[in-house]
Amino acid sequence: MSEQSVVATRGPVRVVGTGLLGTSVGLALRAGGVDVVLSDPSRTTVLLARDVGAGRLPVEDEPEPALVVVAAPPDVTAEVVLAELAAHPGAVVTDVSSVKGAIAAAVAAGGGDLRRYVGSHPMAGSERSGPTAARPDLFTGRPWVVAAPPEAEPSAVLAVRTLAVDTGATPVMMAAAEHDAAVALVSHVPQVAASLVASQLRAAPPGSLDLAGQGLRDVTRIAASDPALWTSILAANAAAVAPVLRALRGDLDALIDALDAATGDPAADGALGTLAGAIAAGNAGVGRVPGKHGGSHATYDVVTVLVPDRPGELGRLLVDMGDVGVNLEELAIDHAPRQAVGLASISVLPGLGEHLESQLEARGWRVAG
Amino acid sequence: MSEQSVVATRGPVRVVGTGLLGTSVGLALRAGGVDVVLSDPSRTTVLLARDVGAGRLPVEDEPEPALVVVAAPPDVTAEVVLAELAAHPGAVVTDVSSVKGAIAAAVAAGGGDLRRYVGSHPMAGSERSGPTAARPDLFTGRPWVVAAPPEAEPSAVLAVRTLAVDTGATPVMMAAAEHDAAVALVSHVPQVAASLVASQLRAAPPGSLDLAGQGLRDVTRIAASDPALWTSILAANAAAVAPVLRALRGDLDALIDALDAATGDPAADGALGTLAGAIAAGNAGVGRVPGKHGGSHATYDVVTVLVPDRPGELGRLLVDMGDVGVNLEELAIDHAPRQAVGLASISVLPGLGEHLESQLEARGWRVAG
Repeated sequence: MSEQSVVATRGPVRVVGTGLLGTSVGLALRAGGVDVVLSDPSRTTVLLARDVGAGRLPVEDEPEPALVVVAAPPDVTAEVVLAELAAHPGAVVTDVSSVKGAIAAAVAAGGGDLRRYVGSHPMAGSERSGPTAARPDLFTGRPWVVAAPPEAEPSAVLAVRTLAVDTGATPVMMAAAEHDAAVALVSHVPQVAASLVASQLRAAPPGSLDLAGQGLRDVTRIAASDPALWTSILAANAAAVAPVLRALRGDLDALIDALDAATGDPAADGALGTLAGAIAAGNAGVGRVPGKHGGSHATYDVVTVLVPDRPGELGRLLVDMGDVGVNLEELAIDHAPRQAVGLASISVLPGLGEHLESQLEARGWRVAG
Repeated sequence: MSEQSVVATRGPVRVVGTGLLGTSVGLALRAGGVDVVLSDPSRTTVLLARDVGAGRLPVEDEPEPALVVVAAPPDVTAEVVLAELAAHPGAVVTDVSSVKGAIAAAVAAGGGDLRRYVGSHPMAGSERSGPTAARPDLFTGRPWVVAAPPEAEPSAVLAVRTLAVDTGATPVMMAAAEHDAAVALVSHVPQVAASLVASQLRAAPPGSLDLAGQGLRDVTRIAASDPALWTSILAANAAAVAPVLRALRGDLDALIDALDAATGDPAADGALGTLAGAIAAGNAGVGRVPGKHGGSHATYDVVTVLVPDRPGELGRLLVDMGDVGVNLEELAIDHAPRQAVGLASISVLPGLGEHLESQLEARGWRVAG
């Protein structure tokens, strides 16, 4: 990293579990000069983490850590947190697992010192896992939820907020239950829906899938996620995910009834209203998803351009956009089956679409519908 | 268009309904020099279509059309097809609506001449509608399903296939029932799922939605679709959509039961297996979605790069990629809430990721996790 880092976290920081997240925390803190001590049940894993520069191994007469970051798999996190609280009575202990309520409850039930435990959840990840996939920039610009039990001391909360800031993330204070409900809604239920839609494709005749467009690809992209990881996430957050899925099933039941009514009579009384209501409710919900910069989801102008499928062509298009002075808000690329041309759908702020179209056409681009 | 078009469609072609699709058909055929006659119940709409260059108005003693393209709303399509078959006994009649079985059945029930009727469905569209949104390139590189009844004459089928080719699309022969089942699976059910997931977001506390990442945005993007259009599509294809939604509901029921079991006991016997099975089934399904070039969905290497949020920066990145000689397979851009930096996730063919990373870093890009 070229910039000089200024970090406030006080070491030594003990990182327990040197997979993707733990090693990335170590790399980010090391970049700021913090002393990081690494621990992992796997000798190979901890040596790899050390070798990529995430910290050092413990020494004899190791000084007591100021902060312990538990980055263990979700199903063993509470147990590791309890062990670390007991072993390091002067340290603040946090964890980074993706479900917070169950872990806080288990730490309380296990007699852990809740004044020194503050759960957290950096909203960052990667398709890859393990210490070699780790990056010092993994958390840059991401929200990092800090979920403190009521018993937590302000200094413990501050230590975890500071950790988030020092890794480049934005700390977001939330109660554990609030966090768990939020991730059920914005992450766990979408994952289930994507998996269920993709699952129905298993028996499709091959020709059918040639009709797939960008919509199917978008809806099912995250269906490629790791089953083992998601099993433990869903199990740990079952109490928050199930009610949302029940509400969704209620809506689905109503839709199926409406479709059954419409099968006999496409103008069936009430059926069309149910169908229209379901799509309109989706309009209202998606309108609340924040766009970039945390602003509300805008209705962008969309300009679609034919891009020859050669290295550099898309880059040339976007350089031309830069020359025109129009900023890109979203970009989707769609490749038709068995064609050597792509369609780039460029979203720009409302009102800029026509200007961009004419300027791109003047530069020789073929603008499509 | 700069290239010389070579078209085989014989005119006059009569386009009935000059919205987005009808006007785009007219524009594409006019670009090839075909005589196109426009008709629409709305005088304003048909004049707009003429003014954008999609064809001409009928004249006195109008010659009989060789081909009639019905591009009316789905709920009136069958009726218009029947009227056109009766009015033009020498013409082949096709329609472009997104559901085929119900229309073919209604045409047969209405005594239409099935030797001259061949349904079709170009897999193209736009967020915008109406003749002013039309483009001669709307169908370029898209599949165009041709669904001929068994009674159709080979010359009628050929005329519709030729129409598809002449507009730049790729004709795909399918039986109407096969088409309807395919679009239920790849388009209509994903639309319903996206709408249902988005619908659950309506009551979310605002802070929750700040945790949203690219996954939620992808799954819910098409939830912004038009309720009126989708009501008529779902009603017309209800018989094909309902069975898929029923199968999905069966899977959802099993998942909810497993989550309920896991709520009491995260290691509940069988529950974890059900959760893992659902995610694994999604893996298998999404693996069948064709990627670009019609090949199977590949597991790409993903390189994530920090891109300053200024015009031209993304273009500069992609030009650098072109210089490196690595072709872009997929691109997703993620903006963290309230940050002026974007994360570009660049998918490249397996094995090329590390090369690209080191080359981009050498050119001064910050590669993230």
